[in-house]
Amino acid sequence: MIYLDHAAATPLSKRAANAMSVYFDEKFFNPSAAYLPAQRTRHEYEDAKDTIAHAIGAKGADLVMTSGATESINLAFSIIAPGAKILISDVEHQAVRACAAKSGNFDTIAVDEYGRVKVSDFEAKLNSETEFVSVCLVCSELGMLQPVGEIAALVEKERLRRKLNGETRPLYLHCDASQGLGLMEVRISRLGVDLLTLNAAKVYGPKGIGALYVGHGVKLQPLSVGGGQEMGLRSGTENVPATVGFAAAMIEAEKHQNGERKRLMKLKKILQKELSTIPNIKFLGKEKMQLPSFLPFCVPGVDAERIIFALEDQEIYLSTGAACAASKGIKSPTLKAIGLNDEEIAGSLRISMGRLNDEENIKLAGQKIREVISAEIERVSR
Amino acid sequence: MIYLDHAAATPLSKRAANAMSVYFDEKFFNPSAAYLPAQRTRHEYEDAKDTIAHAIGAKGADLVMTSGATESINLAFSIIAPGAKILISDVEHQAVRACAAKSGNFDTIAVDEYGRVKVSDFEAKLNSETEFVSVCLVCSELGMLQPVGEIAALVEKERLRRKLNGETRPLYLHCDASQGLGLMEVRISRLGVDLLTLNAAKVYGPKGIGALYVGHGVKLQPLSVGGGQEMGLRSGTENVPATVGFAAAMIEAEKHQNGERKRLMKLKKILQKELSTIPNIKFLGKEKMQLPSFLPFCVPGVDAERIIFALEDQEIYLSTGAACAASKGIKSPTLKAIGLNDEEIAGSLRISMGRLNDEENIKLAGQKIREVISAEIERVSR
Repeated sequence: MIYLDHAAATPLSKRAANAMSVYFDEKFFNPSAAYLPAQRTRHEYEDAKDTIAHAIGAKGADLVMTSGATESINLAFSIIAPGAKILISDVEHQAVRACAAKSGNFDTIAVDEYGRVKVSDFEAKLNSETEFVSVCLVCSELGMLQPVGEIAALVEKERLRRKLNGETRPLYLHCDASQGLGLMEVRISRLGVDLLTLNAAKVYGPKGIGALYVGHGVKLQPLSVGGGQEMGLRSGTENVPATVGFAAAMIEAEKHQNGERKRLMKLKKILQKELSTIPNIKFLGKEKMQLPSFLPFCVPGVDAERIIFALEDQEIYLSTGAACAASKGIKSPTLKAIGLNDEEIAGSLRISMGRLNDEENIKLAGQKIREVISAEIERVSR
Repeated sequence: MIYLDHAAATPLSKRAANAMSVYFDEKFFNPSAAYLPAQRTRHEYEDAKDTIAHAIGAKGADLVMTSGATESINLAFSIIAPGAKILISDVEHQAVRACAAKSGNFDTIAVDEYGRVKVSDFEAKLNSETEFVSVCLVCSELGMLQPVGEIAALVEKERLRRKLNGETRPLYLHCDASQGLGLMEVRISRLGVDLLTLNAAKVYGPKGIGALYVGHGVKLQPLSVGGGQEMGLRSGTENVPATVGFAAAMIEAEKHQNGERKRLMKLKKILQKELSTIPNIKFLGKEKMQLPSFLPFCVPGVDAERIIFALEDQEIYLSTGAACAASKGIKSPTLKAIGLNDEEIAGSLRISMGRLNDEENIKLAGQKIREVISAEIERVSR
């Protein structure tokens, strides 16, 4: 198998699995119980939260643990009063789009041809009525790093203007960091966000666990009520093993982050060179601002789904776009936003590399992908 | 260690752990991805849902997988329109109480001195305005089996009355089966409920996974929106490993259910005999309608917390009440509901047995608990 879909799912790292295992059948206690081993389990849970938080320059008490990115995003949007005006980028994940749509009153911030948010468009659209802004750290289809810091500066400027003007309308900035975490430095202080979504399942941590960083003074509404865990923001018995696994995955990713980025950049160059001989291939995004794990491209005139199934026979696995959107046959809003036409969208593929790749399997994958697409071009042109 | 708090948390069974492990680093795929191994993972996920559903006499498509009982309960309550009239039993878990309180308009159904719902009180309180009823299968503090079938019959009768009268107000019955599942037969058809909450973490399955059975024609509002997983009722990438682990735990529990119940009944008799020599001890609930794993009792005049900490020194772990409530120092509504006075509530302990117990450790636990409580009675009376 050559797995080229790390942006959709990552295997659980051995370290994370090992860290979790003792919590399965030894330290399995309910952290709300009064006796010592349960209280120790609680402390280890809090330590794990601290570790995750530390990786983004925050502390454990700033995090609400959730069941994953989708829940984190929904919880972030819970701050919005009905009818509040929202701005989201045009390259957000479906969960952000759905939350914005549910809230009822949103506009999208345009992106350039590479899929990067146009700060000028944000500046033009941000006005005295805007209450919530959501921009991802790295968009999941193109891997483009977004100008979150610049967006945050404009948000801060607008807040100051409101304050000086005696306007009381709040303004919050949420960032979905599901992609990018573990491959780049993520620091709350530099990003300047109020809310940040984290997801373990994309950084070789366990499935079913995520977190939402919540800035001071940001008052959310819980999605679920009950035992009052997570400062009342997320009731339900804490998922201790998954949180410990998430923390272990974060430590591991942070430690190897720089080396891994360089390694992936090298693999990307090998792959790009191999694929660049495909007639009419168009690489999407712009390398300079793109996560090195991502290599999205399109070949107009070919059917991306046919390519995926042909490569599947050779045990090479990649995606036509964000997995969630792709499975429903929805045309990717991201690819539309960067101005691709229908033929280009239909011929779009996303390679996302990671730990399961090395020079050998990337070279082989490059050859096979080239062969399969070339054969398909020939078939179509006959 | 002698663990006597199985109602608060259970260790993950070896079978469940083994079933899960292959999904950690081999079948780790996003089930929404198009390629074959991801689609196989999806089928195995659906199979696991079918297995869980089968254990309650339903099919996989009737289940919405959640992150646990609290989320399931909150999702069940999502059906209620604001201001709708709710009836819940007076021995519900905090999550049900909190959901009812949030909804704003609820009344409680009285229980008898053993903690069993008074069907006559329900009948008296159920009226043409009631829209939602929530009664647990087994209450978590006393282990008393609740008359869910009888409640369901009255709900059905009221529905029929409304239909014949041309009244359009809906009426739903939810049952929290977090306790009891895996130790008794749970069948949707016999219970007659519209919504049923299931929790893996109480049946030796993994943490962070639960399910809500949703009857046909019952239209819920999702707590989280996004990729549209679980028929749009619960967005977010499916937690495949945990769902597979839940299914394995359910198969195991069902297989040994009858034998385990008998075994626990025997252990309960041993323990009860040992403890019955404690002066003034009062066993709570009524054996005939009590889950055999439960042995709740009170010793008026002693401080249950002191007992717990004294037993902790001997590595014997038990609870003062529902762990979630106990950790917050809230006086148990359940113990108040059965008419205990403050002194009795302060001296209340809950033993909940399970797979970590055998005759040997139960005998030892019985002796130690008797010794510790007797010493405490002596200390207090000095």
